[in-house]
Amino acid sequence: LDITGLRVVLVAPRNPLNIGAAARAMANFGFSRLRLVNPYEVAFREARSAVRAGHILSSAEEFQSVAAAVSDCSLVVGATALIRREAQHPVRRLEYGGRLLCRALASAPAALLFGSEKYGLSNDDLGYCHWLMRIPTVETSGSMNLGQAVAVCLFELVRDSRAAARQPKATRRASAGELERLTELLLQTLDRSGYVQERTTASTVQKLRRLVRRMDLSAHDAEIWLGMARQILWRMENPEVSSSDD
Amino acid sequence: LDITGLRVVLVAPRNPLNIGAAARAMANFGFSRLRLVNPYEVAFREARSAVRAGHILSSAEEFQSVAAAVSDCSLVVGATALIRREAQHPVRRLEYGGRLLCRALASAPAALLFGSEKYGLSNDDLGYCHWLMRIPTVETSGSMNLGQAVAVCLFELVRDSRAAARQPKATRRASAGELERLTELLLQTLDRSGYVQERTTASTVQKLRRLVRRMDLSAHDAEIWLGMARQILWRMENPEVSSSDD
Repeated sequence: LDITGLRVVLVAPRNPLNIGAAARAMANFGFSRLRLVNPYEVAFREARSAVRAGHILSSAEEFQSVAAAVSDCSLVVGATALIRREAQHPVRRLEYGGRLLCRALASAPAALLFGSEKYGLSNDDLGYCHWLMRIPTVETSGSMNLGQAVAVCLFELVRDSRAAARQPKATRRASAGELERLTELLLQTLDRSGYVQERTTASTVQKLRRLVRRMDLSAHDAEIWLGMARQILWRMENPEVSSSDD
Repeated sequence: LDITGLRVVLVAPRNPLNIGAAARAMANFGFSRLRLVNPYEVAFREARSAVRAGHILSSAEEFQSVAAAVSDCSLVVGATALIRREAQHPVRRLEYGGRLLCRALASAPAALLFGSEKYGLSNDDLGYCHWLMRIPTVETSGSMNLGQAVAVCLFELVRDSRAAARQPKATRRASAGELERLTELLLQTLDRSGYVQERTTASTVQKLRRLVRRMDLSAHDAEIWLGMARQILWRMENPEVSSSDD
């Protein structure tokens, strides 16, 4: 994914917090080219002067029209969270549209347009879009906050679908020998405590052995359990000795 | 996905805008159970009184401790955007962790914890988590805005991976007959305009035929092009007649 090729274009944003939030999401996911079309001047100034405003806001470009903001882009996609009824525009769900956008970015710059907080993208703005990308919100509560919409779209672009299938790095599981050592120690402790009754010892051992296996312990955690059991057993066998903590 | 089973838990949130943004993202993606642990009182009150605060904020539950807020949950997952070094906790990327969380929700309620804006989840909070889910932000700009982090995580939970592969509903492409009709009409128009030169007519026809095919027209758009070409041709043939628009 050529992340430098994406231009995030905010059309007529009015709230400095949203401009800042869009820039922050871009930084979070590694994007850098922010463009603003006719931002509310005060909002842009305030966003730029915010404490945490970084290089993205200071290098943000300002344009007078959507046409000018997207002129160097080979693909222009409008983001929307609403289910729009315009028959003229193909509307693609974010999951599918994101793939197409990534593919397009491999060969040429592309723009992702977000409309103003209040009105979204106008019909005139939509005219510059090749297609629309819809964030799959529920129909009864479709309208998204601008900063959150930017974050969700950019996450989808950097999302690694192979990571969904990949198992995380495995921590070493406890070996059968370690588990058996723990079983033994617990059995001694329980025996000492009076939990184990002579006529059911055999079944208690089996129950305990299975119980320990179901814990699905990592080698690291088995070590901790062994240490705790050892200490408890020692205390039961030496009730009068003062421990080092006293 | 049993969406009603998820409890979104904000631990010690301080900013009313963030509480509101979290609730809004929940509404956008169809979640409803919001819990707050020791929210900054003023922030919670302000968030609740915000104009757009809906049923999610009015039914949000308040708790004194993480333990109380997650006590009915069979799985507790901590969300983080930072790369945490705690060896004790399995950290799973959002793409993979989201799958595990959805699977768990199918059988029992689960909690997704978000830390405070300033400090994230404390080591004490983490103790209640079975594992951590990491939003894959870039390492140099890891810290996410709370509302945006909630939006991204919830989107991942409702994300439909089959939608990524699915082709959108196809619009009918223009038939070869329609394309040939357009080619003919354009050829007549160009001929009339003087573009076509007699000795290269054959190659111009071929060029035009391929040009029209490369447009990859839908049946609907082919109809529009035909109408436009017809009108232009008619005007060239009738320069003096006043059109109906005059």
